[in-house]
Amino acid sequence: MKKTLFLSFIALLCVQLSHAAKVDTALTYSAAMKKNIKAVVITPDSYSQAQSMPVVYLLHGAGDAFSGWIKKVPALQQYADDYQTIIVCPDGNVTSWYFDSPIDPEWKYETYVATELVNWIDKNYKTIKDRKGRAITGLSMGGHGALYLSFKHQDVFGAAGSMSGGVDITPFPLNWNIAKRLGDYDKNMQRWKDNTIVNMTWMLVPNRLALIIDCGKDDFFYNVNMKLHETLQYSNIPHDFIIRPGVHNWDYWSNAIKYQLMYFNGFFTKKG
Amino acid sequence: MKKTLFLSFIALLCVQLSHAAKVDTALTYSAAMKKNIKAVVITPDSYSQAQSMPVVYLLHGAGDAFSGWIKKVPALQQYADDYQTIIVCPDGNVTSWYFDSPIDPEWKYETYVATELVNWIDKNYKTIKDRKGRAITGLSMGGHGALYLSFKHQDVFGAAGSMSGGVDITPFPLNWNIAKRLGDYDKNMQRWKDNTIVNMTWMLVPNRLALIIDCGKDDFFYNVNMKLHETLQYSNIPHDFIIRPGVHNWDYWSNAIKYQLMYFNGFFTKKG
Amino acid sequence: MKKTLFLSFIALLCVQLSHAAKVDTALTYSAAMKKNIKAVVITPDSYSQAQSMPVVYLLHGAGDAFSGWIKKVPALQQYADDYQTIIVCPDGNVTSWYFDSPIDPEWKYETYVATELVNWIDKNYKTIKDRKGRAITGLSMGGHGALYLSFKHQDVFGAAGSMSGGVDITPFPLNWNIAKRLGDYDKNMQRWKDNTIVNMTWMLVPNRLALIIDCGKDDFFYNVNMKLHETLQYSNIPHDFIIRPGVHNWDYWSNAIKYQLMYFNGFFTKKG
Amino acid sequence: MKKTLFLSFIALLCVQLSHAAKVDTALTYSAAMKKNIKAVVITPDSYSQAQSMPVVYLLHGAGDAFSGWIKKVPALQQYADDYQTIIVCPDGNVTSWYFDSPIDPEWKYETYVATELVNWIDKNYKTIKDRKGRAITGLSMGGHGALYLSFKHQDVFGAAGSMSGGVDITPFPLNWNIAKRLGDYDKNMQRWKDNTIVNMTWMLVPNRLALIIDCGKDDFFYNVNMKLHETLQYSNIPHDFIIRPGVHNWDYWSNAIKYQLMYFNGFFTKKG
Repeated sequence: MKKTLFLSFIALLCVQLSHAAKVDTALTYSAAMKKNIKAVVITPDSYSQAQSMPVVYLLHGAGDAFSGWIKKVPALQQYADDYQTIIVCPDGNVTSWYFDSPIDPEWKYETYVATELVNWIDKNYKTIKDRKGRAITGLSMGGHGALYLSFKHQDVFGAAGSMSGGVDITPFPLNWNIAKRLGDYDKNMQRWKDNTIVNMTWMLVPNRLALIIDCGKDDFFYNVNMKLHETLQYSNIPHDFIIRPGVHNWDYWSNAIKYQLMYFNGFFTKKG
Repeated sequence: MKKTLFLSFIALLCVQLSHAAKVDTALTYSAAMKKNIKAVVITPDSYSQAQSMPVVYLLHGAGDAFSGWIKKVPALQQYADDYQTIIVCPDGNVTSWYFDSPIDPEWKYETYVATELVNWIDKNYKTIKDRKGRAITGLSMGGHGALYLSFKHQDVFGAAGSMSGGVDITPFPLNWNIAKRLGDYDKNMQRWKDNTIVNMTWMLVPNRLALIIDCGKDDFFYNVNMKLHETLQYSNIPHDFIIRPGVHNWDYWSNAIKYQLMYFNGFFTKKG
Repeated sequence: MKKTLFLSFIALLCVQLSHAAKVDTALTYSAAMKKNIKAVVITPDSYSQAQSMPVVYLLHGAGDAFSGWIKKVPALQQYADDYQTIIVCPDGNVTSWYFDSPIDPEWKYETYVATELVNWIDKNYKTIKDRKGRAITGLSMGGHGALYLSFKHQDVFGAAGSMSGGVDITPFPLNWNIAKRLGDYDKNMQRWKDNTIVNMTWMLVPNRLALIIDCGKDDFFYNVNMKLHETLQYSNIPHDFIIRPGVHNWDYWSNAIKYQLMYFNGFFTKKG
Repeated sequence: MKKTLFLSFIALLCVQLSHAAKVDTALTYSAAMKKNIKAVVITPDSYSQAQSMPVVYLLHGAGDAFSGWIKKVPALQQYADDYQTIIVCPDGNVTSWYFDSPIDPEWKYETYVATELVNWIDKNYKTIKDRKGRAITGLSMGGHGALYLSFKHQDVFGAAGSMSGGVDITPFPLNWNIAKRLGDYDKNMQRWKDNTIVNMTWMLVPNRLALIIDCGKDDFFYNVNMKLHETLQYSNIPHDFIIRPGVHNWDYWSNAIKYQLMYFNGFFTKKG
């Protein structure tokens, strides 16, 4: 009997070791917007034994929701295990662009993701409550969002990434509801220019924010990513920059996320 | 005798078939400016039998008038026949730049051409009363004008072109009376920047407005056209772009117009 | 009754006028290769009344044959009528690249197309027997071929074009059987370099050969066409250069050929 | 007692699961050079249970030896475990450049690594004996070597990488003993040009060899890597290209190798 018990224990242990990440749908609250907002939280197998873990915030693209990433890339659970990292997928309300809209007080997704959600996660999970334990990345609209939030909240995030990011919004003022967040382009040009990533690199100093930026060679955002790369080089801001074969689709992103998470793991585990 | 009669008839028919476009000088009215304005209207040979026809609006350059195009390029009649298309040459009052001047209420050529004239033509001719049946192009000042009016009136025009267009006016603030329309450059820089084509591409989304842009390699507007091309590429706006031998003269334009009209014919006749 | 007869005659005449181009499959002979080779010859409606007509030689791409163009673009008949031009579609034997192969004496397609076929056509059709009455163009492999034959035979051809041309073969030494014509790249680099269009522009002087070159923005030959354009500009060789939306397919070519034929018509009809 | 036994077993199991890669120093033989040559072979924890495994060949830089990689990056053992991949570090005899020297018959390192060593490994280890199961990469001289061997032996290697590779040797004719392998530059220019990676991309066709190339922004090989990237883009050869902060040192390579191995794992595990 005892033998059976121990063998069961071993079996259980092995199962847990090989694939035990947990996917929660958390109900978070935004005081700024006075509403509940869902988020996916992936905790790795080793979470129960851990004291504190780093967190990667992973943003979706325009038209998608908090559940998009885990539906399209279930391997995120494996990656959470591999890197002993919590992965949080916030909801960006289809096309919030992760802005605090200056024209519509009901849209405060900068405050929500960079402050409220981070606080909520830190309160409810065993996280490293420091910028050295937080990274943020995303795809397309979420690539712009991740850089935007990290540039403006460098005290919160220590590393940031972008996959196929719409890192310059000014060429696309009629697309993806950006104008509903910032106001019409023609009447608010300065605001658009102030809130597009390619113009916000002045906020950076070398080696404070760890950056990884990638784009597919045949993506319609290739040119804006090349411009961001050149702007960062001009300003001597260190960053990993990757050009791969590929277009604006999940084949690309399900591959890209692996490299982004490896990069963040390097950031989380580096000494000094 | 009868035979002779019939043969004469055939001969007449053949003549008519090969060259029967009609050139009218129409007297149109601008309510905005409270004055009559002349326009050339070329109707093709087949007009009398037709139910409705597409219209190409063809703008003149600085220093010229509504009659400039037909005087310099009488072959427009042949092209009207070839493509079964009405060609309308508006008057741009020497140097209106086709603006509604914000400083001089007597200059409302945007309103006149894009609204009043189009309505007048639609009322007095058998036209396709839809953006799918209207294109606008022009040379030099008229190239800027055609793009300007089409960008701002995409509900009116479905296709637009520019030949040797002055597609960025900001490098030329002392030329061609532009300052009389927009105010002096040094005191009105923002207005100039808001009303120069290279800065107005944000108004476009891919594949809504069909675009054909050309310029001579040795034209003084070559650089601004290259900049426009690059800006459109950066924003992923599809467009035909042509660089030819040539300078800023009628040799260039009498050739260029043939390709522009062929392009518009492709737009008018495409399915779907 | 007579009246009826004449009216019928008129009706017939009109029909004939609108679409009477004739498509022949001609059996030509190559003395150099000692074999018969087929070609499509399109004669326009007005051919029977004409004394002599210009000819456009239209080359197919790799993998295709003499019949490819007329099958995919039957509107060639209409264009032959419109421009009163004979169109000849030679056979390039799938992947001859229109070379006289220096390693395989059975492949002499430069001699065949530029000399034997031209002579055969001049003998059997009412052609303008002069470079001023001959143009040559083609797509992909045929774009390279048309420029290649025209550069080397400027006494034969007065105008040349390329649509999506593979105008630099050196980046593609393992593709499309080029190595079977020129020998393996690594052992015959100098020969490849001597026979790739981007390196052959030294053969040109300004304004001798009329040139029109186009490519789709998303074509895999876009870069080589940009290089050719830059090389020609560097050498001050006048040429029409067109970048359009599009990729390497018949949607692109069935549109591009219209502009190429209009260009050649301009060449054939210009005075002086 | 029984309990103790089982707990020991569990402890043992955990240890084995977490870090059991084995590092061998293998003594291989080169028939071409008639000598024994050492190599490091890292087999992952799961090797004993496996039927066959993919192999990554990992080349050292100039001045180093087969043992360099494992000494500087002991984490290779962990990576071998993570990706269930054998890692083989050949010896490149300080400055062989992995050439079969045309001037010195005692240097046949192309034959040794790409043929003899691969055969030896396939015979002595449970490998996937196919290009789909073999990748090759290296740093500096080894980056050039890995691309060189993979370009010339595409039947052997299915994927290749380069880290800070000296991918164009022609600007450095007096460095690192290259002249001892190829002969003096001034007297053997053609040979140098034929054996430098930037000139060897003609050997590639799209999507046959999977490629990942990286370089540090402040590396003295940055410019040659940019040139390689541009050459590959000109030839439409898909490849991952990464620019990172960093110089020519082990900080860079100990990071870069992680991404290279992840890339090769993607290659080894992709379907179809």
